[in-house]
Amino acid sequence: MAEGLATLAFALSGLLAAARKRLDAVGVVAVAGLAAFGGGTLRDLLLDRRPFFWVAHSDWLWALLGLCLLAMAFLRVRHLVVSLRAMQWPDAVGLGLFSASGTQLALAHDLPAIVAVLMGVITAVCGGVLRDIVCNEIPAAFHDHRPYALCAFVGGWVLVALLAFGVGETPALLLAAAVGTGLRLLALALDYELPIWRVTD
Amino acid sequence: MAEGLATLAFALSGLLAAARKRLDAVGVVAVAGLAAFGGGTLRDLLLDRRPFFWVAHSDWLWALLGLCLLAMAFLRVRHLVVSLRAMQWPDAVGLGLFSASGTQLALAHDLPAIVAVLMGVITAVCGGVLRDIVCNEIPAAFHDHRPYALCAFVGGWVLVALLAFGVGETPALLLAAAVGTGLRLLALALDYELPIWRVTD
Amino acid sequence: MAEGLATLAFALSGLLAAARKRLDAVGVVAVAGLAAFGGGTLRDLLLDRRPFFWVAHSDWLWALLGLCLLAMAFLRVRHLVVSLRAMQWPDAVGLGLFSASGTQLALAHDLPAIVAVLMGVITAVCGGVLRDIVCNEIPAAFHDHRPYALCAFVGGWVLVALLAFGVGETPALLLAAAVGTGLRLLALALDYELPIWRVTD
Repeated sequence: MAEGLATLAFALSGLLAAARKRLDAVGVVAVAGLAAFGGGTLRDLLLDRRPFFWVAHSDWLWALLGLCLLAMAFLRVRHLVVSLRAMQWPDAVGLGLFSASGTQLALAHDLPAIVAVLMGVITAVCGGVLRDIVCNEIPAAFHDHRPYALCAFVGGWVLVALLAFGVGETPALLLAAAVGTGLRLLALALDYELPIWRVTD
Repeated sequence: MAEGLATLAFALSGLLAAARKRLDAVGVVAVAGLAAFGGGTLRDLLLDRRPFFWVAHSDWLWALLGLCLLAMAFLRVRHLVVSLRAMQWPDAVGLGLFSASGTQLALAHDLPAIVAVLMGVITAVCGGVLRDIVCNEIPAAFHDHRPYALCAFVGGWVLVALLAFGVGETPALLLAAAVGTGLRLLALALDYELPIWRVTD
Repeated sequence: MAEGLATLAFALSGLLAAARKRLDAVGVVAVAGLAAFGGGTLRDLLLDRRPFFWVAHSDWLWALLGLCLLAMAFLRVRHLVVSLRAMQWPDAVGLGLFSASGTQLALAHDLPAIVAVLMGVITAVCGGVLRDIVCNEIPAAFHDHRPYALCAFVGGWVLVALLAFGVGETPALLLAAAVGTGLRLLALALDYELPIWRVTD
């Protein structure tokens, strides 16, 4: 349920990006799909883990296709912007949840903690990165000075720490996801910005 | 034979893109190679299928290198544009053929129909997508309102349907490829455009 | 030791690119990491070779993180430009070394010579290519008319030839790396440019 809403939030971010760039119907579906499934797919490719999520649960591909067609039929940009703002919550939930579950998956492959956390960050962040690359933009996650990957990073380390202290898998996952999500919502509420690298003299 | 011509058409599209961006000799070879082999390689990576086409038949790498050197020695932009127009037919053949054969390959891996069709589309389309990303453009397949991926998508489904009705592998492949190719040529002949998403109010 | 300096040179090129594009702290780490580890990771992905370098030696991820934090704390653009010029030597060493070792790795997978050389080139060049794609630039390796991939290509073939003539693995690797590195330094010293494709009439 939470995963579904979060994936929907990611797909909507792709829809908005595609609309802004005036992509055609095929591009809309492709960019929404990359935003929704790209992060998990890249993680699975790096972990050599098959089948991919959208292969094991191919209903999700149909759902994505349906969502895009419905959006193209009924949505206007102002709806999209409103939906996206309404989606900040599920997007933050996705950030926390996917980084924690990605980290857990990688730990189950016996990877070192830093690599596992990196895999969690990739899961949560790289869908948006691929979306922006295809739309010919510098990825927002690297550029907008909002903590996004950083919240995923902290959430992943919380999971590693909880498991090291002997907390059970499920409560550790939920707690770590809550920390990642909470940090993101806090950063949005406080309008916090990452320090800028003042490289010019 | 048909496959060779189609791959040549894809490579030529890469040559033209590289020439437009004034890439150097290395860039010309890289972009032509991505356009020619990128789609099939991405499909094989997603299917975890080895060896890649250009590993099993490494002569094709030599052929690509030779083609690029010949093109750089003898072609001018007007030749390229003419070649590319002359290549619309083999390009459409490649679209139909690669989407049908990609779908068939994925079905042989016991993947669900929608995933198999998606793999066919990736085979036919992603070479051009990677070419455009490297050239710092929004992929034409997502942007130019011409049905391209859509023809590959329909062709893939025709293959799935024919196999479900018990048609043999080879005739099903040829028929599905013919449908994908035919739709593309029809769309070009009729100057058909995909509906635009009118998101602005 | 040589490998470490070369990877440092690659990471610094990512730092400079990130600084030029005014990325935030997360983007700086991501782009430096792609530049340093992207080429080898792509090669391993294509060869289906696990674990990746940065999984087997995860200390390097910590080192990268530390380098980026130190750079952001202490470096200014003029320092970076100076460091990068000072890094032309280790960068050339990396070019020679990584192309030779990538070629050797691929040969150990029983791949044809042309494919093995291509893998060497990918190892040496694709980190920079991914860095430039994420920074929304046409890859410098395809665009700046400096021989870079070409030196890697020649170095790879030298390795193939030496092994074919029965030279031992280690001396062949060192000689091939020296040729790749030497060609690059020679090209820089002579200010040599690749021939341009004069496609306009």
